[in-house]
Amino acid sequence: MKSLNIDNINPHIRAAKYAVRGELAVKSEEYRAQLERGERGNLPFDTVIAANIGNPQQLDQKPITFFRQVASILENPILLEHKDVLLNALGYKEDVIARAEKLLKAVGSVGAYSQSQGSPAIREEVAKFIERRDGYPADPKNIFLSNGASAGVNALLNIICASPNTGVLIPIPQYPLYTATLAVLNATAVPYYLDEAQGWGTSFADIKASYEKAVANGTDVRAIVVINPGNPTGATLSAADIRSVIEFAAEKKLVVMADEVYQTNVFTGEFISFKKGLRDLQKEQPGKFDDVELASLHSVSKGMVGECGHRGGYYEMVGIDEKVQAEIYKYVSIQLCPPVVGQCIVEMMVNPPKEGEPSFPLYKQEYDGIYKALHERATALYQAFTKMEGVECGEPAGSMYLFPTIKLPAKAIEQAKNEGRQPDEFYALRMLDATGICTVPGSGFGQREGTWHFRTTFLAPGTEWVGRIVDFHKKFMDEFR
Amino acid sequence: MKSLNIDNINPHIRAAKYAVRGELAVKSEEYRAQLERGERGNLPFDTVIAANIGNPQQLDQKPITFFRQVASILENPILLEHKDVLLNALGYKEDVIARAEKLLKAVGSVGAYSQSQGSPAIREEVAKFIERRDGYPADPKNIFLSNGASAGVNALLNIICASPNTGVLIPIPQYPLYTATLAVLNATAVPYYLDEAQGWGTSFADIKASYEKAVANGTDVRAIVVINPGNPTGATLSAADIRSVIEFAAEKKLVVMADEVYQTNVFTGEFISFKKGLRDLQKEQPGKFDDVELASLHSVSKGMVGECGHRGGYYEMVGIDEKVQAEIYKYVSIQLCPPVVGQCIVEMMVNPPKEGEPSFPLYKQEYDGIYKALHERATALYQAFTKMEGVECGEPAGSMYLFPTIKLPAKAIEQAKNEGRQPDEFYALRMLDATGICTVPGSGFGQREGTWHFRTTFLAPGTEWVGRIVDFHKKFMDEFR
Repeated sequence: MKSLNIDNINPHIRAAKYAVRGELAVKSEEYRAQLERGERGNLPFDTVIAANIGNPQQLDQKPITFFRQVASILENPILLEHKDVLLNALGYKEDVIARAEKLLKAVGSVGAYSQSQGSPAIREEVAKFIERRDGYPADPKNIFLSNGASAGVNALLNIICASPNTGVLIPIPQYPLYTATLAVLNATAVPYYLDEAQGWGTSFADIKASYEKAVANGTDVRAIVVINPGNPTGATLSAADIRSVIEFAAEKKLVVMADEVYQTNVFTGEFISFKKGLRDLQKEQPGKFDDVELASLHSVSKGMVGECGHRGGYYEMVGIDEKVQAEIYKYVSIQLCPPVVGQCIVEMMVNPPKEGEPSFPLYKQEYDGIYKALHERATALYQAFTKMEGVECGEPAGSMYLFPTIKLPAKAIEQAKNEGRQPDEFYALRMLDATGICTVPGSGFGQREGTWHFRTTFLAPGTEWVGRIVDFHKKFMDEFR
Repeated sequence: MKSLNIDNINPHIRAAKYAVRGELAVKSEEYRAQLERGERGNLPFDTVIAANIGNPQQLDQKPITFFRQVASILENPILLEHKDVLLNALGYKEDVIARAEKLLKAVGSVGAYSQSQGSPAIREEVAKFIERRDGYPADPKNIFLSNGASAGVNALLNIICASPNTGVLIPIPQYPLYTATLAVLNATAVPYYLDEAQGWGTSFADIKASYEKAVANGTDVRAIVVINPGNPTGATLSAADIRSVIEFAAEKKLVVMADEVYQTNVFTGEFISFKKGLRDLQKEQPGKFDDVELASLHSVSKGMVGECGHRGGYYEMVGIDEKVQAEIYKYVSIQLCPPVVGQCIVEMMVNPPKEGEPSFPLYKQEYDGIYKALHERATALYQAFTKMEGVECGEPAGSMYLFPTIKLPAKAIEQAKNEGRQPDEFYALRMLDATGICTVPGSGFGQREGTWHFRTTFLAPGTEWVGRIVDFHKKFMDEFR
């Protein structure tokens, strides 16, 4: 028996669940490695499609040229001694060179640690972006750059969770980063259900009921998480929904954590930031919402940027106590600083080429092209789902995912139970084994009891893989109907 | 009163201390910003020297050309369509292009998430490096790439610490990542003192006494941390020291955590990895050490690489239970993956240009030049210390630091007490205010009671700043003698 074994390690890590990269993802990687070794054997597919995770550049999405040209100079600043080559032989534009020079002045070297909170000059650009977006000022001292948005969620929940009794309201379904982190911190997730019948909007009545039930059970509810646009749902909250969350948070003195990483992945409706929602309320009803505490998060991994591997993100804190911010600073300092190239990508995301600048036409063409392709793929997938027996799916609304409901036959549910699995997990595993397509069962995100879903990205190119799902589903239903 | 305030946040974060980026570092950044705004005012210095943290590229150290040329292609793979320009106009060598092609094949795009554990092809290169270094094989499945070595320490301690009662043996003085992380996890640091009189080696007697005292107090001691070469001490452990730590760990069933990030920063003695030490013992005494559990960590931030801002690192696990490794995998998955460019820098660190390859001559010249410059600066600083009243310092042995003892006058100790500070903190603060040089007081690392130290890097170029320290020290002693 090893001295460190499954029975004596940190029990809170054992308790955490993170299905997005769980058993199915691991199995799909094994299939991928098997195919790469040329050992297809009996596998009924010749490619593995990772539809389990929003990872655009693993599939078809090309990086935005401006970002990567600048980054190539950041990595090798000696290129600046060959401007003629960059401009004439390699097609770099003047604004690429100017941006690289500006960023190198800000960070010194991308190989140097920055301040723990991120480069001050980059935080200034983030503040200006927020101000342009919302029409209200932002202060760079309240902005923390982070190692993707995930590190921001980690830091904020680490600070908020003071004891096992601390509760955080979490939308269900949710991106499991939230419940997994709360599990590791041995704190209490207080679920509130999104309303599938209303396009996965928030239900104020459900939030209130969940809160009251938790408080009655002795939980010290401290914060509410909102994912807008939704993951896995894609839903964009209306101004009224945002307002009612803020009003509720003000009444109950809850910190609002707004995960806004999909803010540009919006097909229907309009993205409104929680910061704008809060400032609007403060303007309309002076004095009443001054104490609201908000942290909103953004990332370079999603949107049309899709630079997941660079691990860039930021969070802005509004109305958070200065001493608390100092403790967050100390906490993030222990891990030194976010990746510096990732910080630079954040700068370019919030401050892309502008109309009239040399890189703008290509930037706009690429940006719009990615948006359009995402929308087309989402629509094609949605249309396939509408034709599948027992599958219901709302029209694509945003984010990078569809999250259809599946009505599974009783025989399939029975078989799942025999295998010790959730029915939708059983379904997703069968799908992987039959098609090589890796999705995430709805049980990985949470769902109303007795309902079953799966989440798939719509990032993979072409329609051939959609056909694989349709065929699989038909055979599955034939087997278990 | 804010709902989230200093009295109700996570008390374990409040309790954590991390002096390397603490009050002095924050104050030095304020001085730097003031000077950059051209508002020197009464400041008695015109530059700020960050000698508080091993951040080579913030100071004088140039990145290694091969690494950055490859990285520039990774960021902008379209450059591969202009090989003639790279080779003829920009001076890239054939092996730069080949390496970039190999790494792009491994990761797809540096903007895509990799496997949570890091790219398999890069982990294979790490395994080969370990095998070449130690003469014993390594298995890529036991290697986790990480966001700097710090993220590895975080993951390992998170897994090991099961309750407030879990104890981890920590060398004193130590890099405060360890005590800070244990504080956040609400686990118990069990200090053992390094022997300053013996060049900061480990003292087996002290380790044993600390362990026994902790066990007698009911602590469940699970692991022992060793930093080799030492931070802040620079000492490299002898084969005998390594052997006695492993024997002790085997006897008491402790996981050995070997922080080996300074493995190439060695001026005196020879670096021997704990992995080699363990395998040697296993070979000599078959069966007796089979159950030893070891995790060893490395990083791209230190050595002659110095790529801190890229946040790359790895840890190898030896003898760790498979189920435990699966839980570590799940834990790191929650934060998705380490920065992908950082992973590629790891690959280049462990697999640099070889003799006979086109980039080798420049690589070797740069590598040797950095090593030599570090040694020269360390020696100059050491010689200055030997001439300072009441300062004692061992000859530079390794890492990036000197850690002199200072005998402070009673009046200075009294004055520090009046200001509510540790005497060496008082001294380091005075030094910063007088010279613009930011160091870290010994109390930030731990030290024997009644002794005082400070840690300074020897990364800053030139000798002018060394003179500033000498002058300050003289005035300080004159004031308080």
